[in-house]
Amino acid sequence: MSDPRPIGLFDSGIGGLTVLREVQARLPAESTIYIGDSARHPYGTRSDAEVRRFSEELSDELVERGVKAMIVACNTATAVALEHLRERHPAIPIIGVIRPGAAAAALATRTGRVGVLATVATVRSRAYFAAIKDENPGTRVIERAASELVPLIESGLTSAREISDAIHAAVGPFLVGDPGARIDTLLLGCTHFPLIRGAIVEALGAPIAVVDSAVATASFLQEVIAVNGLETPGSSRGTAADAGHRGHTAPTSEPVAPVHQIFTTGDPVAVDALAVRLFGESAPRTRQITLGSNRR
Amino acid sequence: MSDPRPIGLFDSGIGGLTVLREVQARLPAESTIYIGDSARHPYGTRSDAEVRRFSEELSDELVERGVKAMIVACNTATAVALEHLRERHPAIPIIGVIRPGAAAAALATRTGRVGVLATVATVRSRAYFAAIKDENPGTRVIERAASELVPLIESGLTSAREISDAIHAAVGPFLVGDPGARIDTLLLGCTHFPLIRGAIVEALGAPIAVVDSAVATASFLQEVIAVNGLETPGSSRGTAADAGHRGHTAPTSEPVAPVHQIFTTGDPVAVDALAVRLFGESAPRTRQITLGSNRR
Repeated sequence: MSDPRPIGLFDSGIGGLTVLREVQARLPAESTIYIGDSARHPYGTRSDAEVRRFSEELSDELVERGVKAMIVACNTATAVALEHLRERHPAIPIIGVIRPGAAAAALATRTGRVGVLATVATVRSRAYFAAIKDENPGTRVIERAASELVPLIESGLTSAREISDAIHAAVGPFLVGDPGARIDTLLLGCTHFPLIRGAIVEALGAPIAVVDSAVATASFLQEVIAVNGLETPGSSRGTAADAGHRGHTAPTSEPVAPVHQIFTTGDPVAVDALAVRLFGESAPRTRQITLGSNRR
Repeated sequence: MSDPRPIGLFDSGIGGLTVLREVQARLPAESTIYIGDSARHPYGTRSDAEVRRFSEELSDELVERGVKAMIVACNTATAVALEHLRERHPAIPIIGVIRPGAAAAALATRTGRVGVLATVATVRSRAYFAAIKDENPGTRVIERAASELVPLIESGLTSAREISDAIHAAVGPFLVGDPGARIDTLLLGCTHFPLIRGAIVEALGAPIAVVDSAVATASFLQEVIAVNGLETPGSSRGTAADAGHRGHTAPTSEPVAPVHQIFTTGDPVAVDALAVRLFGESAPRTRQITLGSNRR
């Protein structure tokens, strides 16, 4: 089996591009469609009902554009809306970023004390507490909200100096108290935060492992694509299987170069700046899109 | 590290004994304490608030008796109260039966269509839907409630003839419609149901894999015990590690024979009948216990 349709990803803004980068690295033959809802970011301080409605619109748009699988590349939307989206689109495998990130953190800790830096809505959901405890119920999970960092990152202020004070205020409480009782692993529970990873590591100023969900999520997607027979024709696995079934004759379907599309509900110029930083000059031009209720 | 304290398990009644059996098979050196709340069964048709309160009382009793880890050996209590109990007892690793069962079902299916037979409260929680989708989001999950089977099993009517009609009514809807669209795996989403597994397989009358969470849960417990350094002294892993650290001299702590205790809030004679069936004549005598609000 093989399936040339693209993989869809959405986020409240530009943070999910960190997940897209890992997806393209892991699955270079697959086409992708990314939608960032920068016009309505941040999600982390919105009500659950709003996040659910926006997530519906984004996922509907991706389904209309024919994706074969979807990543909710936003921790807040994963925490609040993942099951809802899975009920809404039963035929599409939908992956969130929380469980893969939780698994990475539970594996990384040696002392069994994991900190989670996330948005208010994600912390409120207790989704990371549940997911990390499911991986290893012996782990202590200390969650802290830092929603204020997201608009700074969205506006492009990602260098250490510009948001240094905000980052120090956010991670400071993880460093208080008896060193023996402190976390040894910090999970970046918002896909925007890897964009300021360097500044976070510097602010921690201690031997604390900093993990995020991008690599683990892309790795899980790869597994889901393989297990459900969704590889694109011409991808290494797909080609080998096709050739095998046909007695080593040439595959009928030629490998097709993957197509990558990036859409935003906000200002495409701002997204392009980050896309070029993450993907190089070959990054697709970001195009503006209007969604659901804003379309009318 | 090693830890001689017992492992605790609780259930709404006798169903969790199927999990206890697998725990003893996997971890023969570990002591166990089991409490079944048969006086207040079934949980599956109660409100979430009631299930949460009863689960608090059962878990508090196990913690007071000094357990080092706990299995919520009841699907309803896992679905409704697991995270609540983890917040209540942060120092004790607490394992539910839903995720291990979901993992077993997601691995077992070839067609990607899994049926779940559970109680009303478990189905209402959508916990199996979420857990199976987390394992493989490409799986279709069809849930059906069959709470009516639990009181029949609790009253000892487990032979095929006695509850045959009820079982046929419960599984019948899984067999309706186009055979190509039917489930190929049925997950027994209640720890009571493995006690009537034979009758369920017979009623299905089709090549459908029937899986339950007992083996997978015991296997996960074994991992949690090992990863968190909680093995009892004298268990095979514990002894080897101790000997290694001491240059192959004899371990200072002699292996101690495990102690198993079974308590019920209901009639001990009825529980004994099943315990002897599952564990043989060496089964510990079931003792009656009074919990929380009923204690006064």
